[in-house]
Amino acid sequence: MKKIWFVTGNANKFRELSVIASKYDVTFEMAPLKGIEPQADSLEFIASFCAEEASKTLGEPLVVEDSGLFIDALKGFPGVYSSYVYKTIGCEGILKLMKDVSNRRAFFKAVVAYWSPELPEVKLFTGICQGRISDSIRGSQGFGFDPIFIPESREETFAQMSREEKSLYSHRYLAFSSFLHWLCDYNRKL
Amino acid sequence: MKKIWFVTGNANKFRELSVIASKYDVTFEMAPLKGIEPQADSLEFIASFCAEEASKTLGEPLVVEDSGLFIDALKGFPGVYSSYVYKTIGCEGILKLMKDVSNRRAFFKAVVAYWSPELPEVKLFTGICQGRISDSIRGSQGFGFDPIFIPESREETFAQMSREEKSLYSHRYLAFSSFLHWLCDYNRKL
Repeated sequence: MKKIWFVTGNANKFRELSVIASKYDVTFEMAPLKGIEPQADSLEFIASFCAEEASKTLGEPLVVEDSGLFIDALKGFPGVYSSYVYKTIGCEGILKLMKDVSNRRAFFKAVVAYWSPELPEVKLFTGICQGRISDSIRGSQGFGFDPIFIPESREETFAQMSREEKSLYSHRYLAFSSFLHWLCDYNRKL
Repeated sequence: MKKIWFVTGNANKFRELSVIASKYDVTFEMAPLKGIEPQADSLEFIASFCAEEASKTLGEPLVVEDSGLFIDALKGFPGVYSSYVYKTIGCEGILKLMKDVSNRRAFFKAVVAYWSPELPEVKLFTGICQGRISDSIRGSQGFGFDPIFIPESREETFAQMSREEKSLYSHRYLAFSSFLHWLCDYNRKL
């Protein structure tokens, strides 16, 4: 069974990944490295950069995941800085910014960057979950902006779903699934 | 006359600096380098990091300045990410977040990082301007959050003041002044 480092300090993300990974012949181990995360406009750039940086310390196959909530009416805010915005103004702040705003379209996006010594460069995998911002904070599952995000075709927020149910729609799930699909395929061809 | 690179892509900052520098025997030249700016909790860390990075390209005395608006009631938001927050939700967004909030205390903080080949490490200089968030957008001078920031002991926002008047209170002015004071003193001792 292949072991891959998941470079993150976020135990919630790691638990979400475990749900996904259980279907594949892969084990993940958490590597809570503290590296430089660049300020940048794109999750792709940030994830690639962090994967390259972590590879200098670990030297073994690893993934980095970066994700964000992008709200149409707020020009993509909080976007790449979602975790900082969550820690400061939180869900309440976002709802206040969205007060009386009729266009509530938003999406969650996750980018997984995979680094391995045998690859010429970092491989990127993306997952997007379209949805909308709720009118109030609902639910207590999940983390971050889950209590104010309703995925398309549903009425509940992510925070009103179990981890398994959320994984059916989750951007993080989609990004990691496409990575794991690719990885299994790649390993078969070796 | 000593020449120092000011690493910035922001022409407004450069113009503000020119007002300050005119009183000292120093010339600044704008170096619009595009480097990695790290995500971090402190302006000090960001400015130091960027100065070290820029030194690898320029190899000559240089300054980097980073600044932000820290609002008490929003746990310091927008803080180190002020420029991103300005580009997305802008002054309107901040006023919306501050609607019905009675504690309007805030401060602008600037950190100047100076790198020079003869120094053992980057030197930091800080400037803070205490004040409050206005109830509405007022004035058209300056840039960024100037139209919603009222410095202590005044009634006008930064955007209602001329560049010269703003410089009497400005965090950036204070940080650069303390740098220039130190520099002249240092050069005298050589």
